[in-house]
Amino acid sequence: MTTIGIDVGGTNIKAVLTGRDRCILAKLSLPTYAERGPDVVIGQLHAAVEGLLEHASRDDLSGIGIGAPGSVDFERGMILHPPNLPGWEEVPVVALMRDRWQVPVRIDNDANCAALGEAYFGAGRRVAHFVGITLGTGVGSGIIIDRKIYHGEKGYGGEFGHTSIDYNGPPCGCGNFGCIEAYLGNSYLVANARERILHHPESPLYALLSEGTGALTPRHISEAAADADPVAFDILYDAGFKLGIAIANAANLLDITTFIIGGGVSAAGKPLFDGIAEGANGRALKVHRGFISILPAALGNDAGMLGAASLLATP
Amino acid sequence: MTTIGIDVGGTNIKAVLTGRDRCILAKLSLPTYAERGPDVVIGQLHAAVEGLLEHASRDDLSGIGIGAPGSVDFERGMILHPPNLPGWEEVPVVALMRDRWQVPVRIDNDANCAALGEAYFGAGRRVAHFVGITLGTGVGSGIIIDRKIYHGEKGYGGEFGHTSIDYNGPPCGCGNFGCIEAYLGNSYLVANARERILHHPESPLYALLSEGTGALTPRHISEAAADADPVAFDILYDAGFKLGIAIANAANLLDITTFIIGGGVSAAGKPLFDGIAEGANGRALKVHRGFISILPAALGNDAGMLGAASLLATP
Repeated sequence: MTTIGIDVGGTNIKAVLTGRDRCILAKLSLPTYAERGPDVVIGQLHAAVEGLLEHASRDDLSGIGIGAPGSVDFERGMILHPPNLPGWEEVPVVALMRDRWQVPVRIDNDANCAALGEAYFGAGRRVAHFVGITLGTGVGSGIIIDRKIYHGEKGYGGEFGHTSIDYNGPPCGCGNFGCIEAYLGNSYLVANARERILHHPESPLYALLSEGTGALTPRHISEAAADADPVAFDILYDAGFKLGIAIANAANLLDITTFIIGGGVSAAGKPLFDGIAEGANGRALKVHRGFISILPAALGNDAGMLGAASLLATP
Repeated sequence: MTTIGIDVGGTNIKAVLTGRDRCILAKLSLPTYAERGPDVVIGQLHAAVEGLLEHASRDDLSGIGIGAPGSVDFERGMILHPPNLPGWEEVPVVALMRDRWQVPVRIDNDANCAALGEAYFGAGRRVAHFVGITLGTGVGSGIIIDRKIYHGEKGYGGEFGHTSIDYNGPPCGCGNFGCIEAYLGNSYLVANARERILHHPESPLYALLSEGTGALTPRHISEAAADADPVAFDILYDAGFKLGIAIANAANLLDITTFIIGGGVSAAGKPLFDGIAEGANGRALKVHRGFISILPAALGNDAGMLGAASLLATP
C-alpha cells in the first residue's frame, strides 16, 4: 500500500511516494509552469504521479494528498485564489485527480501540510498536539490537535503568524499592526536588521548595507551570528523573543506546549531559539512556564509533500 | 430524567435542577462556608442536592455537574488550589459526590462552565463554536468547539484573558505584560479610568475620585456612559477596542468568529460592544472582517450552574 504526497509550489512541484510504516520509496520534483495556467499545472500533477508510479504498482496506490498555497477549500477540494498560481479561481483539483487516478484524493493548504508532515515524519512524531511554524516570506503555521490538522469553522484556522503582540506596532501586510509576521517575515526581519546595523559600523554586516536593498538576507545575519557578531546575535535573539511572546499567547489560549519551528530563518539556530524559549517560558502562565518546548523542524522543504501524503492517514 | 448543576463560588453555592429539553425545574442558593474547610463545603454541596431533590424524584436524577473556581483536574475529578476555597488541596470532590448520590458526577472550572451554559441555555445555542468571555475581577473564558469545552493538553486551555496585545504594556497579575486582563479586569479598568478622569473635571465621575480608591466602580462608569458622559464612553470604548484586538488574534488562530461577552463590565453595553466590534472586525484577517459576531451573554450569574448541569450532556 502506497500513498503519494504532492506539494504544489509557485515554481516547483515536489512529490513523494510513501509506503507502509512511513518509509519513503521515491521523490521527484518538476517545474510547476504556473504561468501557463491550470490545465498545464494539472498536467504536471499527473506527470508527477506517473513518475512516482514507476517505483510501485498502480494497484497498490491507496490515495493522493495535495498541499497547495493560499486558501484551500479542503471539503470541496478546491484551491481558492492562490497568490502564485494565476488563473486558479476555483479549479476542482481534487475531482480532476480522482477522476484520472481512481483513488481517494485530499487537499489542504501548504502550512497545514508542513505541520502534518512534521507530525507523521518529523519533529512532531512523539507529540499529539503542537503548533508548526514556518518562518519564510511570511510566517505560516498549522495547528495539530490529536495528530490531526485543526481547521476551525471554515478552514482558515491556525493563522498564528497574525497574532499581534503590539497593537500599536509596525504595520503588517494583513492590515493589522504588530503581527508576529511583521517582525519575522523575511522582508520585515531584514528591514529591522538594517536599521539596527546602521548604528554598528563595527558589524561585518555593515558593509552589506551600502550594496542596496536585497544585499542583506536572513542568511547573512545567521552566518554573522554564528561567527560571533553580537549585533547579528541580538537581532535574531530579539526576533525570537517576540515570537516567544506570541507563542506564550497561543500556549495560554490552546494549552498546547510544543512548538516546532521551521523555514529559512529557523536555520539561525541558537540565538533565535534562545530568544524564543526566553519569550515563551518567561511570559506564559505559571502552569506552562518551563514546560513549553521549542523544537526545530526536522524535514526542511520536504515537510509539505510528506504532510500531503499524510492527509490520507487522518480521518 | 433530571440533572443537577452546581456552581461553587467563594461565598455562595448556586444550584439548579434541569429537566428534559433544558427546562429549569428549580434553583437554590446556599452559603459556601468556604472558611470552615472542605468537609463543611462538601456538606453544603450535599445540602444543595437534597434541597433540589424536593422538586423531583431521586430515581429520575441522571447526574450531577459541578463548576469550581481555579484549576480543576476534570479527568481525576479534583479541584486544585482554588484561590477562594482554603484547604482544598486535592479534595476528590467528584468521588465524594458520586459515592453519596450514586449517579455520574462531572466537574470543570467555572469559566468553562459559564461558556458551556451559554452554549446549551443562552446566547450560544445556535452556534457550534465560540469563545465565552466573562469580564469580572479577572477576564475568564472558555472555548466551545463543536458544542463541547476545549480543554487542551492538560485542561488549562481557554485562557483568553492572558492574551498579550502589547508586550511592553501594563503588568498583569500573571507576570506577563499587556494581557487583556490587565486592561479589562475590574481593578485595572478602574485604575485606568481614574487616570483619565483626573484630566476631566467636567465629568460627573470626577467627584468620585476624591472619595478614595474603591469609590469608583465599573458600574459608575457604565452609568455615566449611559448618561452621555463622553469621558465614560471613551473609557469603555477603548477597553472594548483592546478586547477586540485580542479577539482578532483568537479569530485568526482558531477560525472561530462568535464571541459571547458576559460578566459585570459587559453591562456597559453599547460603548463597550461598539469598541469590541471595531477592534475585532478592524484588525482580524480579511476573511473574518465583518463576520466576527460579538454577542452579549444571556444568562448572567446563572451561566455557571447551567453549564455545570450541561457537563453531563457532553461526551
